[in-house]
Amino acid sequence: MEFSSKLLEKAVNEMSQLPGIGKRTALRLVLHLLRQPGNQTIELADALRNMRSEIKFCKSCNNISDSELCEICKNPHRNEELICVVEDIRDVMAIENTSSFKGLYHVLGGKISPMDGIGPNDLNIQPLVEKVKQGKVKELIFALGSTMEGDTTNFYIYKQIQEFDITTSTIARGISVGNELEYTDEVTLGRSIINRIPFEVSLKS
Amino acid sequence: MEFSSKLLEKAVNEMSQLPGIGKRTALRLVLHLLRQPGNQTIELADALRNMRSEIKFCKSCNNISDSELCEICKNPHRNEELICVVEDIRDVMAIENTSSFKGLYHVLGGKISPMDGIGPNDLNIQPLVEKVKQGKVKELIFALGSTMEGDTTNFYIYKQIQEFDITTSTIARGISVGNELEYTDEVTLGRSIINRIPFEVSLKS
Repeated sequence: MEFSSKLLEKAVNEMSQLPGIGKRTALRLVLHLLRQPGNQTIELADALRNMRSEIKFCKSCNNISDSELCEICKNPHRNEELICVVEDIRDVMAIENTSSFKGLYHVLGGKISPMDGIGPNDLNIQPLVEKVKQGKVKELIFALGSTMEGDTTNFYIYKQIQEFDITTSTIARGISVGNELEYTDEVTLGRSIINRIPFEVSLKS
Repeated sequence: MEFSSKLLEKAVNEMSQLPGIGKRTALRLVLHLLRQPGNQTIELADALRNMRSEIKFCKSCNNISDSELCEICKNPHRNEELICVVEDIRDVMAIENTSSFKGLYHVLGGKISPMDGIGPNDLNIQPLVEKVKQGKVKELIFALGSTMEGDTTNFYIYKQIQEFDITTSTIARGISVGNELEYTDEVTLGRSIINRIPFEVSLKS
């Protein structure tokens, strides 16, 4: 691609570093910005710059936050004895949207994935083990995606905390609420039969 | 979507103003930036800001440029008598890539589209008419997309310059080089038969 402007070229090159955005898409986005009133671009630039330079990670749970401790960890009404282990902030947002969890989170920042060169030491696992060691935590809920990497990470953490007096659980895998049995994949359906729950329990939720 | 950080929320909101990027995609992009080394985000922000505040539009052809006159208009080897009328800089780049045009461009900045509220006065048409009036231009090549809006715009400009002594042409529509006849749509194939060219001419190009 030959550009008539170095400034345009630079903007397109930077934009096309984003995942899933190629040169052509980047050019389309940048030209769109040029057609808008000037402050839209400036506000986008400022928002990105401010986010990058001022955002913090909660020193307790590693969630993205504007202050030292995130709003969830600060909240005295949350149950400190219950910790839900998730991959990143998107999972925190998804679970918070359900309004059905009142404990705290622990954000790992990824999953163990040797193929991508991500080992246990690249993740926020050690602080979690420390937390458990201190004895305040009663239950750890693993809520990582149900993939090989997720299962590996769950198992690694489980091994690290096995020696302590703590309950571990994983979120239930099964057919979605409202789904037809015949359209569910066999692995999920199989697991949902093996991990069936007492009928009375299902009435409560 | 509930965010744990105002800074993150602001960045996602600004990012999701871009065409084709919804809130979820914006969050994915912004979290990607947070995982990268800090300077990538800062460079993107600076590139956007610099582009917006410093970029110019060539005062002759309206193409995006770093200086008053763009590189193409500045070039003394280009043929001033031949002007190719295009919609935006992407068309200029596409035609420049072919290396088969040695004239100048005139960038309209859009097409007449009453449905989108774009009239002739919103486009860079008047300066083109002025250029033609001055008598230097011998031929105008219409190279707008082959849509109703493109045809309308071509016709509007044609009407404006009809009275002057000038040749007008449009780029050829026909089946693509390398394409099979049977897979070409009927309109294109029909036009390519009506607008057939002498065989000797096709040998030269």
